[in-house]
Amino acid sequence: MIKMKFKVKKEILLESLNNTARAISTKNLIPILTGIKFELKEDGLYLYASDTDVSIRSFISKDKLTSTSELGSIVIGGKYIVEIIRKLPNTDISIEVIDGYKLIVSTDNTEFNLNGINPNEFPNLDLDETKEPIVVNNGIFKDIINQTVFATSQSETRPLLTGINFKLSGNSFEVLATDSYRLARKYVEIDKDIENEVNIVVPGKNLLELTKMLDDDTASVEMHLFSNKILFKYKNIVFLSRLLSGTYPTTSNIIPKDFNIELECKFDDLFNMIDRASLLTSDREKNTVKLTLTKDELMISSNSPEIGRVEEKMNISSDKEINISFSSKFMLDAIKSFNKEKVVLCMNNDSSPIVIKNNEDSSLVQLVLPIKTC
Amino acid sequence: MIKMKFKVKKEILLESLNNTARAISTKNLIPILTGIKFELKEDGLYLYASDTDVSIRSFISKDKLTSTSELGSIVIGGKYIVEIIRKLPNTDISIEVIDGYKLIVSTDNTEFNLNGINPNEFPNLDLDETKEPIVVNNGIFKDIINQTVFATSQSETRPLLTGINFKLSGNSFEVLATDSYRLARKYVEIDKDIENEVNIVVPGKNLLELTKMLDDDTASVEMHLFSNKILFKYKNIVFLSRLLSGTYPTTSNIIPKDFNIELECKFDDLFNMIDRASLLTSDREKNTVKLTLTKDELMISSNSPEIGRVEEKMNISSDKEINISFSSKFMLDAIKSFNKEKVVLCMNNDSSPIVIKNNEDSSLVQLVLPIKTC
Repeated sequence: MIKMKFKVKKEILLESLNNTARAISTKNLIPILTGIKFELKEDGLYLYASDTDVSIRSFISKDKLTSTSELGSIVIGGKYIVEIIRKLPNTDISIEVIDGYKLIVSTDNTEFNLNGINPNEFPNLDLDETKEPIVVNNGIFKDIINQTVFATSQSETRPLLTGINFKLSGNSFEVLATDSYRLARKYVEIDKDIENEVNIVVPGKNLLELTKMLDDDTASVEMHLFSNKILFKYKNIVFLSRLLSGTYPTTSNIIPKDFNIELECKFDDLFNMIDRASLLTSDREKNTVKLTLTKDELMISSNSPEIGRVEEKMNISSDKEINISFSSKFMLDAIKSFNKEKVVLCMNNDSSPIVIKNNEDSSLVQLVLPIKTC
Repeated sequence: MIKMKFKVKKEILLESLNNTARAISTKNLIPILTGIKFELKEDGLYLYASDTDVSIRSFISKDKLTSTSELGSIVIGGKYIVEIIRKLPNTDISIEVIDGYKLIVSTDNTEFNLNGINPNEFPNLDLDETKEPIVVNNGIFKDIINQTVFATSQSETRPLLTGINFKLSGNSFEVLATDSYRLARKYVEIDKDIENEVNIVVPGKNLLELTKMLDDDTASVEMHLFSNKILFKYKNIVFLSRLLSGTYPTTSNIIPKDFNIELECKFDDLFNMIDRASLLTSDREKNTVKLTLTKDELMISSNSPEIGRVEEKMNISSDKEINISFSSKFMLDAIKSFNKEKVVLCMNNDSSPIVIKNNEDSSLVQLVLPIKTC
């Protein structure tokens, strides 16, 4: 007979459940995968969930549990257990398996008697770690993802472009995302030299889900690399993602190295100009705005025959001239990814890629392709 | 040639535009009604919008405008003008009509040139006031609506029940809402005796929209009553709503006056018990929970064969017993409408309406019908 019995403070259990529940798919067709597996072992409580794309295990060590009396495991409907724990008062909660697969969740005045599922039906998640993980600071890891993920493709026509490309060589970690109209590239150095070069593509939405679990602290994220999967470890959480198969396009020759025009602008000013000019644009026309540089003025403009016209101007001293059109949405995404006071727009001509960078931080480069207008 | 020219601070114009824009319907099939009419007169700027169901006029008096130079009017696409003003910097904005129906919106570095529409095409909104409005304090007016509107019907099968019934007689103002499964009744006294009795039904969604425009201040709401419409006046805003036609059902004999059981409970405890018990219920089964009262205990329970069972208990001393089922959703709505520490559940038997009230405030009564279970 399956058993399990322990007590735990509401806040502790809820935090672990919330993290684990990220791997429950709402549209999962395999009933057991709508559940969360509870497993109480000698060293503490393990919670598991998986939608086959992502698997998560979180752990509450024994010293954080109020008491334990019977080791064991059960699977319980994920949607319900999270809501129930969330709405219970902030006190000790007693969790107990009785009569085979019933889970009793109780406090002094409340008793939930929930139908569970045999834990043996839950898939065996292979969450083994490698011996030589790559370690990245939590804050840097969040930057890596947040500064690139928006540039992944949202369309499944080229599945590989919905992922983020991780390239490791020596002590260099290069991260790339592109939807073929724009590109984001981030470089960081890792603490040690790795032996074999790595070139993998991780689904962007999985990485975005992972970053939501990262607190604002100085903990590290460990990356454990396998040929067909990647396992991240952060504090008491293990996050497993499948990889996308295929060869990521080579992009190193796409980013120009020299530019005719390098235009340094205040972040706020440039962002607001483009943001306002985009008000009269539409998705249908790729939210196109035009940048016009003359000797003493930068102008961002757009024109919609039905609605009207907008011109945004900034005084600037430059000896160059250019007329170039681009997607305001892509440009705003690119500018936003720099948490800096200034950004530099780098251009050659109206058909060559626009590169956005910051003079004090060379780790991040954004690229946006111009749009041909008549 | 139509003209108009003035300057106004961004925050002042934006507040008025936001209020006026509430009357723009997004699915309006009459193009002119997707616009906001600007009318600059001697005394200030009037803004108008109407979706034929609701019409709003807001007003910025001349002393709040930075400068005015040409009186006139124009109609401009509501969706665009609100977004444009919202995204402009917090400074003086110049607004000018040129070349017939072009509207120029500009600041130092920005110029929007928008296509306007001839203001003569905008319908003439009859916003005349009566001489004898009924005046209600703003805070009380918000209570009146917020404590009743949730009980209106969301279904158009009985259109009259989507409205709130206003009944005025002498100095009494009675407000009723019901979807035929529950009922909310609020009483307030008005400052003067009105001559003729009033019995009208105002669309609930319009009243909800109106309350969103009311600040947390001590201003008054004036109600101007007409046979086929009601006009509300609040500070510089005039809000006109059509009425629903038909005779609202008589409900005075539905609310029991005497009860076998009156159960006073702490608001928080009762709310949380029912809220948790509702977790295992479904819309399909009307979110039914059961209340069981015995000598020393109040229990709220629910049972879903697939998911499980929940029992919530509270110690209580009572010499009565009852077993009664009701919609947890309706009961939570009813309890929530009291901003009080305690509420009283009043019951007679398992098929008689449940009345919820508060012993210190007799102005509000909520009623929920029980649900027959097997």
